[in-house]
Amino acid sequence: MREDPAGVSDRIERARQARHGRYLLKEEFITLSHGSGGKASHSLIEGVFVAALRNPLLDRMEDQAVFTVEGARLAFTTDSYVVDPIFFPGGDIGKLAVNGTVNDLATSGADPLYLSLGVILEEGFPLSDLHRIAASIREAADRAGVQVITGDTKVVPRGKADKIFINTAGVGVLRRQGTISLSRARPGDRVLMSGPIGDHGVTVLAARGDLELELEIESDTAPLNGLIRALLDTGVEVHCLKDPTRGGVATALNEIAMHSGVSIALDEINLPVSPEVQGACEILGLDPLYIANEGRLLVIAPPEGVDVLLRTMRNHEFGAGSRIIGEVFTEPQSMVFLRTEIGGTRVVDMLAGDPLPRIC
Amino acid sequence: MREDPAGVSDRIERARQARHGRYLLKEEFITLSHGSGGKASHSLIEGVFVAALRNPLLDRMEDQAVFTVEGARLAFTTDSYVVDPIFFPGGDIGKLAVNGTVNDLATSGADPLYLSLGVILEEGFPLSDLHRIAASIREAADRAGVQVITGDTKVVPRGKADKIFINTAGVGVLRRQGTISLSRARPGDRVLMSGPIGDHGVTVLAARGDLELELEIESDTAPLNGLIRALLDTGVEVHCLKDPTRGGVATALNEIAMHSGVSIALDEINLPVSPEVQGACEILGLDPLYIANEGRLLVIAPPEGVDVLLRTMRNHEFGAGSRIIGEVFTEPQSMVFLRTEIGGTRVVDMLAGDPLPRIC
Repeated sequence: MREDPAGVSDRIERARQARHGRYLLKEEFITLSHGSGGKASHSLIEGVFVAALRNPLLDRMEDQAVFTVEGARLAFTTDSYVVDPIFFPGGDIGKLAVNGTVNDLATSGADPLYLSLGVILEEGFPLSDLHRIAASIREAADRAGVQVITGDTKVVPRGKADKIFINTAGVGVLRRQGTISLSRARPGDRVLMSGPIGDHGVTVLAARGDLELELEIESDTAPLNGLIRALLDTGVEVHCLKDPTRGGVATALNEIAMHSGVSIALDEINLPVSPEVQGACEILGLDPLYIANEGRLLVIAPPEGVDVLLRTMRNHEFGAGSRIIGEVFTEPQSMVFLRTEIGGTRVVDMLAGDPLPRIC
Repeated sequence: MREDPAGVSDRIERARQARHGRYLLKEEFITLSHGSGGKASHSLIEGVFVAALRNPLLDRMEDQAVFTVEGARLAFTTDSYVVDPIFFPGGDIGKLAVNGTVNDLATSGADPLYLSLGVILEEGFPLSDLHRIAASIREAADRAGVQVITGDTKVVPRGKADKIFINTAGVGVLRRQGTISLSRARPGDRVLMSGPIGDHGVTVLAARGDLELELEIESDTAPLNGLIRALLDTGVEVHCLKDPTRGGVATALNEIAMHSGVSIALDEINLPVSPEVQGACEILGLDPLYIANEGRLLVIAPPEGVDVLLRTMRNHEFGAGSRIIGEVFTEPQSMVFLRTEIGGTRVVDMLAGDPLPRIC
């Protein structure tokens, strides 16, 4: 069992209370915002699930739990996928379900090994679509080097679910020494991003028909375990790894800032955003920093190793667009800032509300 | 990785093709029967998921996968819960989600350790109900001696799911030598059942208002890991352990008969059925052998140890009603029979169709 020598849980709890502990109690019913991955999600998870289920492993609130059994150091994680539509350019709900769970294992430094597959089907769902999704799951699992070894299928009457929901859980093994954690960012560290921001979210929105645009982009969904293995094989110190999914880069970095008790500054000029995503966001009044990514990686590491890490990332197929996007500071704790192109500074808070339900 | 020296996968495949391989291909769309746990479920799982995802661990088609990593022998399983109604006498969807996954781990002989929790919520779901379910999950986890250490929450718009669906996956450790498996039943073995049949299914039906009866029963949902540990601690040889959930005792024993390539005979006079379940089944035209149980245990073991096992089971709170209900024979392979009270014999096939959707 991981220990908590630095009082990380306490620090998170204090930051939570100071910043968004107030959100939950206002509401009596679940809203779409509770599924956003942003503030309301955090409040719901902390106020209901963590409060009821409290234990040292869960309290860490990372994307995976790490524990030791019979001498083996393992990572364990789960995610449910409710994306709408279920097929979109660059992927589908099955590919997403494999890559998402692979990535949540890999960002702890674990090698993902095995997945479980829980499928909830709506009566009337076409078998042909299910075959297509199963084949996509197999292809994604092969690509990531994992196996689906156990599963469950449920069916609910027509109108009681929307086509198909998929849950995957995953088990991985940590074979390296050292801890990679959202709580390890330190002042002076650099923030690296593996590629353009927001491609997945905007692709799904476009596939839904919510945009009047013909876009040339596709989802970034990808398994990050190979890229992460390459990074760790350099031997260079890495403090945090995070795939910025629901809530986007802004929410992911806020989590890191809170867990680590640091401040993170982003440079707007260095944020990689494709013209398609930029254009779509302008039309919709969205900020790319809050759009979900499903195959991008945030890396936080001490400055002395950044050149080696950046070179390694750029040599990998899923890190070709890597660049330094920001830096870690001491104060003000638990906050993220954007240094704008015109020389100003603005606070980048966690996602509030949910502009994009069912993006993953 | 478990090996397959006895050609179990081949045997299951042959039995499947001979007996119900024809079910899937008739249909183009998912029906409620595909979620029954019976024939259509098996055909769907084999025809879509196992066919696409094929690997030695998944092909075993047990309720859990067993693998070795870094010298630790682990069990891994998952189940989704879509029960309607979500609260019922004796339990709720949360308690069910903990016990079901605990039991799927324990029936491999593993000690369940950790669970993941994936929750899909419908917009508008009351927070008060969610608090109640979270508290129930905590209570059930404490009772079973496991911890929920990782989780995920998604929200879908109103009308896109029915209140709440829960997925749990679980990891357990096998600390004992020997293999307990659906493929290990041998001629001469006895079949033991830990208590009355069908209480869970009939309770949920009644809670749904589908019965015009006032029933005195409640769900049998319970964690079976303590009972199983007590059995294994006797040192007496046990061949198969199985909790007869969806599809009931009939379907569970058919699975064992197919996996083991044996025949199983049940004695009707020894089947434990409460008067409430008997009465409800008569009114509804259901057979208690096909009704789901969520805290009952089937044990198959050589005759010489049965007295010790039975005594141990009866001394445990979840096995007080244990008795011998049948025996294993050589022929005809892969079949289950009922020896009726009036001296006849009838075939007990797997569940076909689904009389009771959303029972777990």
